[in-house]
Amino acid sequence: MTSATAQADRPLLTIEDVRRAAARLKGIAVRTPLLESEALNARVGGRLLVKAEPLQRTGSFKFRGAYNTISQVEAAAVVAYSSGNHAQGVALAARLLGKKATIVMPADAPRIKLENTKAMGAEVVTYDRFGESREAIGEEIVARTGAALVKPYDDSRIMAGQGTAGLEIAEQARELGVTIDAAAANSSGGGLIAGCGVALREFFPEIELHCAEPAGFDDHARSLSAGERLSNEPGRSSICDALLSPNPGELTFEINRRQLKSGLVVEEALVREAMRAAFRELKLVIEPGGAVALAAALSGILDCRGRTVAVVASGGNVDPALYAEILTEA
Amino acid sequence: MTSATAQADRPLLTIEDVRRAAARLKGIAVRTPLLESEALNARVGGRLLVKAEPLQRTGSFKFRGAYNTISQVEAAAVVAYSSGNHAQGVALAARLLGKKATIVMPADAPRIKLENTKAMGAEVVTYDRFGESREAIGEEIVARTGAALVKPYDDSRIMAGQGTAGLEIAEQARELGVTIDAAAANSSGGGLIAGCGVALREFFPEIELHCAEPAGFDDHARSLSAGERLSNEPGRSSICDALLSPNPGELTFEINRRQLKSGLVVEEALVREAMRAAFRELKLVIEPGGAVALAAALSGILDCRGRTVAVVASGGNVDPALYAEILTEA
Repeated sequence: MTSATAQADRPLLTIEDVRRAAARLKGIAVRTPLLESEALNARVGGRLLVKAEPLQRTGSFKFRGAYNTISQVEAAAVVAYSSGNHAQGVALAARLLGKKATIVMPADAPRIKLENTKAMGAEVVTYDRFGESREAIGEEIVARTGAALVKPYDDSRIMAGQGTAGLEIAEQARELGVTIDAAAANSSGGGLIAGCGVALREFFPEIELHCAEPAGFDDHARSLSAGERLSNEPGRSSICDALLSPNPGELTFEINRRQLKSGLVVEEALVREAMRAAFRELKLVIEPGGAVALAAALSGILDCRGRTVAVVASGGNVDPALYAEILTEA
Repeated sequence: MTSATAQADRPLLTIEDVRRAAARLKGIAVRTPLLESEALNARVGGRLLVKAEPLQRTGSFKFRGAYNTISQVEAAAVVAYSSGNHAQGVALAARLLGKKATIVMPADAPRIKLENTKAMGAEVVTYDRFGESREAIGEEIVARTGAALVKPYDDSRIMAGQGTAGLEIAEQARELGVTIDAAAANSSGGGLIAGCGVALREFFPEIELHCAEPAGFDDHARSLSAGERLSNEPGRSSICDALLSPNPGELTFEINRRQLKSGLVVEEALVREAMRAAFRELKLVIEPGGAVALAAALSGILDCRGRTVAVVASGGNVDPALYAEILTEA
């Protein structure tokens, strides 16, 4: 792996970057609510605030970073590779900004994500997740068409956009009159928690920050412990289709290794239970990869006792058959 | 039926009543978001705004009216009869206000509603919906204990509280810079649309207002056509457990017959499809009785073409097994 490209005199991401992203997204992205339930608070023995990004346009936080990035792109077309949520975010942002979008998606992505991406007017190119390189396919399209590549996380513009979720959490907590003691967000490439962390630390300098990952895809947890970027074993699968990046991003890790206390690792059964809890107590549809940080809080892996803790529910694009299975298995 | 008790010189409900209720609920009730989706807008050929009351405390709008009423009650205890959502609203409002609550609920209410009501600290008394009178049971408890009866709809304080949802819709539409052409809310006793209508007409004097009911429980639709309160045939059942009142309320109808254009009647299959659409496009869990107005809009019964239409998704307390069945049946 190449070494980090951070320059000592210019941080990779500042609160001003996040604020400028928020200004670009104003009136375009949804200011999603910070949900709370008496039952869940009682269960965790603290105050649990859930940022409801399934209610974001395209059903996940990914729209934020995509729009912030594409609004700064000069090319007439964009390309992205994504397991699905970034795909939808890029597709809609490109349409709103009058640009053509081509999305490289795994052939086994959830049908709802493939269909929604096409429905938003993007051209979808599928690939075999176990045999082909999405990066290579994306770069070939860039070379051939002159389109701009919209990376899923390793880009300051993306991180700044995702960070607007954290900025809103901080503002909403202020409106509630509470100080957030700890926060966690699901991580695949690490862009969401990188951006949210920068924003949250600005408001709450003492905040304890974590990323959350499904078991088997704990590259962030291990990388944070080791102090260097480590990869997941290839060939694995997980119900959390949104969180399958092979390793932390280069730029995101440069930020996250400084600001995160640790990575939380959550077994699939707890993720499923968190999805049921969100159905029952929050009336919010969360996809598996969107429910890992919530699962960490509800299971006590992230200790909420006597504290105010914010978690990002990052997306809600789950196929109905899987959701029905999870609802009824308990 | 007794005649309406309206006095010519004092309207049953004014915008000032709703504003005072909003002041009491400020910081207590959730200002629920007004959701929107590209896909649903495209489907209806207009702009469809969905007030997400499943995200309200206790999972339905009923908390609004319950809190507004109980905050004005002097007795140390309250009693309510309810199929479930009013029960939960009263239970939580009473707890927050330091009062004891007894709730009379049908034995066949959804388990989630019975359990949640008990979990909020209320005493639950069940009755047979086909053989016993909930009103009689409630009145007996009032006579015996001195508790104050918190009616489900036929009370100006209840209507004013429910109207705060409409006030928020109007304010949120203003923030979006849009004029609402038409609005619809699910009706059982008619308190929600009575209150919301008063608020919405203040902001949008030309607005077209409707209530929405499931087939077989179309007492409002027929009553509005006839100009007098008509009842449903007894003994019927519906998937929309929240909307089973036998007839329009006396006070609510006095308001609604003046302000509603018509009652929309929706078959169960369309309600189920609306619940699936809300899962897929809004990531919002809506219970059957909460999805009727949305179903009217999505099916074209309420014409949205070229218009901006607001509907209230009024609750989300649905048992997981039923929800799973509905998600997978299409």
